[in-house]
Amino acid sequence: MLVVQKYGGSSVANAERVLNVAKRIAETYEAGNSLVVTVSAQGDTTDDLIAKAKEINPSPSKREMDMLLSTGEQISISLLAMALEGMGLSVVSLTGWQAGIQTDSKYGVAKIKQINTERIASLLDKNKIVIVAGFQGINKYDDITTLGRGGSDTSAVALAASLHADLCQIYTDVEGVYTTDPRICPDAKKLKDISYDEMLELASLGANVLMNRSVELAKKYSVNLEVLSSLKKVPGTLVKEVRNMEKAVVRGVTRDNDVAMISLLDVPDEPGIAFKVFSLLAKKNINVDMIIQSIGRENNKDISFTVKIDNCQEAVDLLKENFSAARDVVYNDKVSKVSIVGAGMVSNPGVAATMFEAMYNAHINIHMIGTSEIKVSVLIDREYSEKAVASLHDKFILGK
Amino acid sequence: MLVVQKYGGSSVANAERVLNVAKRIAETYEAGNSLVVTVSAQGDTTDDLIAKAKEINPSPSKREMDMLLSTGEQISISLLAMALEGMGLSVVSLTGWQAGIQTDSKYGVAKIKQINTERIASLLDKNKIVIVAGFQGINKYDDITTLGRGGSDTSAVALAASLHADLCQIYTDVEGVYTTDPRICPDAKKLKDISYDEMLELASLGANVLMNRSVELAKKYSVNLEVLSSLKKVPGTLVKEVRNMEKAVVRGVTRDNDVAMISLLDVPDEPGIAFKVFSLLAKKNINVDMIIQSIGRENNKDISFTVKIDNCQEAVDLLKENFSAARDVVYNDKVSKVSIVGAGMVSNPGVAATMFEAMYNAHINIHMIGTSEIKVSVLIDREYSEKAVASLHDKFILGK
Repeated sequence: MLVVQKYGGSSVANAERVLNVAKRIAETYEAGNSLVVTVSAQGDTTDDLIAKAKEINPSPSKREMDMLLSTGEQISISLLAMALEGMGLSVVSLTGWQAGIQTDSKYGVAKIKQINTERIASLLDKNKIVIVAGFQGINKYDDITTLGRGGSDTSAVALAASLHADLCQIYTDVEGVYTTDPRICPDAKKLKDISYDEMLELASLGANVLMNRSVELAKKYSVNLEVLSSLKKVPGTLVKEVRNMEKAVVRGVTRDNDVAMISLLDVPDEPGIAFKVFSLLAKKNINVDMIIQSIGRENNKDISFTVKIDNCQEAVDLLKENFSAARDVVYNDKVSKVSIVGAGMVSNPGVAATMFEAMYNAHINIHMIGTSEIKVSVLIDREYSEKAVASLHDKFILGK
Repeated sequence: MLVVQKYGGSSVANAERVLNVAKRIAETYEAGNSLVVTVSAQGDTTDDLIAKAKEINPSPSKREMDMLLSTGEQISISLLAMALEGMGLSVVSLTGWQAGIQTDSKYGVAKIKQINTERIASLLDKNKIVIVAGFQGINKYDDITTLGRGGSDTSAVALAASLHADLCQIYTDVEGVYTTDPRICPDAKKLKDISYDEMLELASLGANVLMNRSVELAKKYSVNLEVLSSLKKVPGTLVKEVRNMEKAVVRGVTRDNDVAMISLLDVPDEPGIAFKVFSLLAKKNINVDMIIQSIGRENNKDISFTVKIDNCQEAVDLLKENFSAARDVVYNDKVSKVSIVGAGMVSNPGVAATMFEAMYNAHINIHMIGTSEIKVSVLIDREYSEKAVASLHDKFILGK
């Protein structure tokens, strides 16, 4: 079996952990698998490098920043390779460019265009363990690029897709994907498997296990993903194309606190007003999530939507500046989005109603509602968000 | 004018020094020069990386060690580029492989085979300052290699040679090349210029300003070298083809404490004995420096030679094992080699005699004598070495 494994920065933070990861790799290899491993920068390395840079120049170019940050993974791969050499294993480390990871030229947030797997394939043919620097690649100018947040996961999935690997294992500091945050609900259950779409909804809703980018890529190329713990040896959660979608209705409950609600009040009801509002925000790279448009009074209407908290003030200022015809622009940054996710939802129309009932029973007021085929989200006051998660988990999942 | 500058690790050890170096570079650039800069790893970075590696594997492969160590220079070049960006200058940093520095495959001690200067030349054409990682290159397998000790100096000289630069400036923590160690003789003088050969002798004799390797390369390609201080703005020492060689006789006095004398006593006087002794040592990579062979008694003779202190015990053991016919093998590791260097020496036959006279006047016993066209060396007890340097400096150079 050809396996791609990815270990995050905390899994290789010091010598002891590097040796531990090496042991994991050795076990997989000695069980007869071919093995490609991607690894992130050790612990706080990336933050330390950023601090070093800021001391010298508060706003360095992204090209030079990528040149700097890519050293973090290069250090990790060589140390991990040395650990495996120490166990008598045959291993070669490769930087992003040596591994043939070609990206576009958006320094700092580069996207993988293709992987020229020739060198990796020939090393695997020679029974070598191949360690590849995650998070980085090379662009058409032969410059080093980095992939941005969640980049190492993306590297792993892209390698698995290009090499037609049988399995892509993402080792993290959690044991898998849970029905909800175990810190909120102690009876949260670990899921044995989950579909790509469910995982996408869970990730975007704040379950920070896998970045959406890597899940999207896995879905596109049908890569079997497994999320599992680098510390405990227990089975993780498989992310794959789940066929039997009607079995379970709600698979998980999530909460996102990084959300603010903005309302444009009494704006004249002209054609194209929504287009004008949201294209204005898009131009400033402000992502909008939930949107509702009220029917309004007379010839006016209200438009409400949510953004990330960091974007709130800028969005409010923009709207005030450009929509002076509106009576007012107000915002509330003390809200949370709580969602239930499950691929079976679309064929179970009572789910949303059950959710609202749970909120009602818990005396929680709902500001906004959003639905998709596999999730229902409600926007509520942040102070009640944990209570809401617990109530919903209790109602739908019923614990372990 | 096209200038190649090299800054050592201590010159870029922290943010303040990086900014300081950037200022230096900016001045050279703004004076109308084209500029390529090579830089070493910051301060103790290389040692820290080696320590990290040893914690994981006491004897890692050299390939992975090069993968690891090359990050040190990559960090330096990006930080230095950021500092220059902060001053509004147009700059690009390049790793060894991006700069086209092709080496052989001897990881850890690689030699530069050639530099493909296309990318650097095109950047210079666009008036960009080019910062190149010293100490590293790429081999024919697309693996990263490092050049070993003094590698950054070598990178700088090789770049200057390949680019046909007008000047190659090596910035160090000393102000230039002195007639002797100023810590021993406070009246040591800084030399305005020195020939390649004199510099080679001085370097090999312990004046640790430039590694021989880079001087040899400079000589081969007639690169004008300047050794100067990265801290003080004063002229340094030019290393170049000095025509008027008869002007000064003795240019410098040096001392080397890393030396031990070994004697093979009463070895049978057969043909090829010297060959046998020194080929045996060469096979074990033990470098021999001064050699004398005495006439000896009867059919026996004595062979004495010097090695580096680290090699002394191994050499003695080897000789005892392989030359049982010798009466004994003895050594003395409390000696120093003191030398006078000057290209004019060859045409001034009295120089050696004057040297021995100075030793006699200072009551210093001479164990061994070695001569070349531009130097005379004596091996003496280490306890008298400073006294010897001072006497010779006084005799030949006569201070400032």
